[in-house]
Amino acid sequence: MVEVARGGRFRAIAQLLSLVEQDHPQLPEVTAALTPHTAGAVVIGLTGPPGAGKSTMTSMLVSAFREEGRRVGVLAIDPSSPFSGGALLGDRIRMTQHSTDKGVFIRSMATRGHLGGLSWATPQAVRVLDACGFDVILIETVGVGQSEIDIAKLADTTVVLLAPGLGDAVQAAKAGVLEIADVFVVNKADRDGADEVARDLKQMISFGRAAPSAPSWRQPVVKAVASRGEGAEDILDALRDHREWIDSHGELEGRQTNRAAGELESIVLSRLRSELDRLSDETMFSTVARKVARGALDPFTAANQLITALGLAGT
Amino acid sequence: MVEVARGGRFRAIAQLLSLVEQDHPQLPEVTAALTPHTAGAVVIGLTGPPGAGKSTMTSMLVSAFREEGRRVGVLAIDPSSPFSGGALLGDRIRMTQHSTDKGVFIRSMATRGHLGGLSWATPQAVRVLDACGFDVILIETVGVGQSEIDIAKLADTTVVLLAPGLGDAVQAAKAGVLEIADVFVVNKADRDGADEVARDLKQMISFGRAAPSAPSWRQPVVKAVASRGEGAEDILDALRDHREWIDSHGELEGRQTNRAAGELESIVLSRLRSELDRLSDETMFSTVARKVARGALDPFTAANQLITALGLAGT
Repeated sequence: MVEVARGGRFRAIAQLLSLVEQDHPQLPEVTAALTPHTAGAVVIGLTGPPGAGKSTMTSMLVSAFREEGRRVGVLAIDPSSPFSGGALLGDRIRMTQHSTDKGVFIRSMATRGHLGGLSWATPQAVRVLDACGFDVILIETVGVGQSEIDIAKLADTTVVLLAPGLGDAVQAAKAGVLEIADVFVVNKADRDGADEVARDLKQMISFGRAAPSAPSWRQPVVKAVASRGEGAEDILDALRDHREWIDSHGELEGRQTNRAAGELESIVLSRLRSELDRLSDETMFSTVARKVARGALDPFTAANQLITALGLAGT
Repeated sequence: MVEVARGGRFRAIAQLLSLVEQDHPQLPEVTAALTPHTAGAVVIGLTGPPGAGKSTMTSMLVSAFREEGRRVGVLAIDPSSPFSGGALLGDRIRMTQHSTDKGVFIRSMATRGHLGGLSWATPQAVRVLDACGFDVILIETVGVGQSEIDIAKLADTTVVLLAPGLGDAVQAAKAGVLEIADVFVVNKADRDGADEVARDLKQMISFGRAAPSAPSWRQPVVKAVASRGEGAEDILDALRDHREWIDSHGELEGRQTNRAAGELESIVLSRLRSELDRLSDETMFSTVARKVARGALDPFTAANQLITALGLAGT
C-alpha cells in the first residue's frame, strides 16, 4: 500500500491517511516504511476567523503552486467541531475544482478524540504526504483559538488570513494570532475597510516589535482578493522570504524538531493512556475514581496509587 | 488558607483557584485538605454559540438561585482563546452586578497550556468551590466545539443556550450539541425566529430519539429572555427535573465518577509528561526528536526508546 501510494495513487494515499485518523494498529509499521522517503516538504499553515475566505484562499494558493510545477497536498483540519460535515462539504466543492489535476490532493481530517488531537495526527498526515512526493503541504484550519497556536507549532510558515467587515472576529484574531503569524494576508482587499485592517495590523506588528531582544522576522502584511485570484504572487513571495529567513537563521530546523517533539510526546502519552485503560479494565481505575467522586480520596493521592500500579519508575 | 477560604473569604477562595490555574506545587496538599469538606454541589454547565447571551443568562440564573437562598459559584472558562481579556472584561461587568452579594462568587479561568486543559483544571476548581460551601456551581464556557463536549462530561446537567438570528452558528450548534445538551434554552425568545429555533430543536430531539434502546431523558426546550429576567423559573424547573431524573436512574453517580476519572487520568498523564520533560533536560528527548525531524528515525520506534528510558513496565 505504501508503494502504491508513493506511486501517486490517490486512493492509496487516502487509505494511508485513514490509518492515521483511526490510529490503526498497522500505523507504526506504515510510518516506519514511509519515513525513509520523507524529503522535507514545505509545510504551510493557513488559519483565520470564519468568513476570512480560507477555502477560496487555499484554492488560489494551490493554483499558484501548481503553476510553479509543485505538487500540493492540502489537509483541511477541523479540530473543534464535533461534526466534520462543513469541512467535508467544502472539501468536495474544492475537489471538483482541482479534480482533474493529479498534482493536487485535498483531504479533510477529523482529529477529534485523539489524545493530543491535532499535534498527534497532523505530523503523521504530513509525513504521509511528504513521503508520497508532495512538495508543499498546506494545513488549513477552521476557527480561531488554541488550535491555531497548535498549527503554528506544526507548520514551517503560518499564514493568518483576515478580511474587512468581520468585526469582533478580526479584533480577536488580531489580538490572539499576532504572536503565531509569520505572514498576514488581508483577503477581500477590494472591500471597504481593508486598508484599515492592514494599517491596524502593521501598527500592532511595530508595537509588538518594540525593543526586540533578538533579530526577529518582521511579519509582512499582504493584500489579496482570493475570489478573483489577485495577490497570489505577493503571498508566494512572502512565503519564500519567510522560508529563506528561518532557514538562514537556523529556525527551520528548530521548527521541524519541535514538530517531531510534539508528535513524539503525543505518541508516548497515548501509549501510557492505553496502559491506564488497561487498568480501567482491571476495575482498579474505576474503583479509585468512584472514591474520588465521593470525596473519600483526593485525586492526587489517587493518581499516586495509579502510577504505582502502572509500574512507572522514578516518580 | 483553606480554613479562611472555607470561612467565606473571597480573596482566599480566589487564591485557591489561582493555585489550580498555576498547577502550583502546593495544590496536592490543598486538595487533600479540601476533599473531606466536599458536599456534592450541583454542577451545571452552560454553553452555546457566541451571541446566544451566555453572560446575561448566567446573571439571570445566579439571581434565581440566590432567591432560593442557594450560594452560587460561577466559573467562566475560555479554553480556546489565546487571550482571556474578553472573559475577564465580562467578569468585571458581572462582578459589579453581584458585587454586594456574599453568596455569589464569579471567576474567569484560563485553562490554556495545561495537559488535559478543561478536564484537569475544572474539576479541581469545582472541588474548591464545593468545599467552600457553594450549593450550585455554574460552569460557563465560550464558543462551540470540543470544549462543550468536555463540559458535558464535567457537569451534572448541561444547558445549551441558543438564540434566533445567529444563522450558521445556531445550525452548527444544533447539530453538534444535540448529543451533549440535557436542557435547551432558546434565549431572546421575544425576537423573530425564536419559535422556529424551538420547533427545529424539538424536531431534532424527536429524530434523535427514534427507536431508543434504553429509557432516556427527553431534553426540554425552554424559552427565555434573559435580558428582561424572563424564563428563570422554567429553566430552574427543567434543571430540577433533570437532576431528579439522573438521580433516580443512577446516572448522577455515573457522571460524578466520570468527572473524577477524567481528572485522575489528567493528573496521571501530567505527571508522566513531567517525566518526559525530565528526559528532555537529559538531551535524550531532543536528540531523538531531531532524528525524527530529519527522517532518520520513525516516531513510533522513537517513542519506544523514550518509553524504555522512562522505565515504564508492562508496555
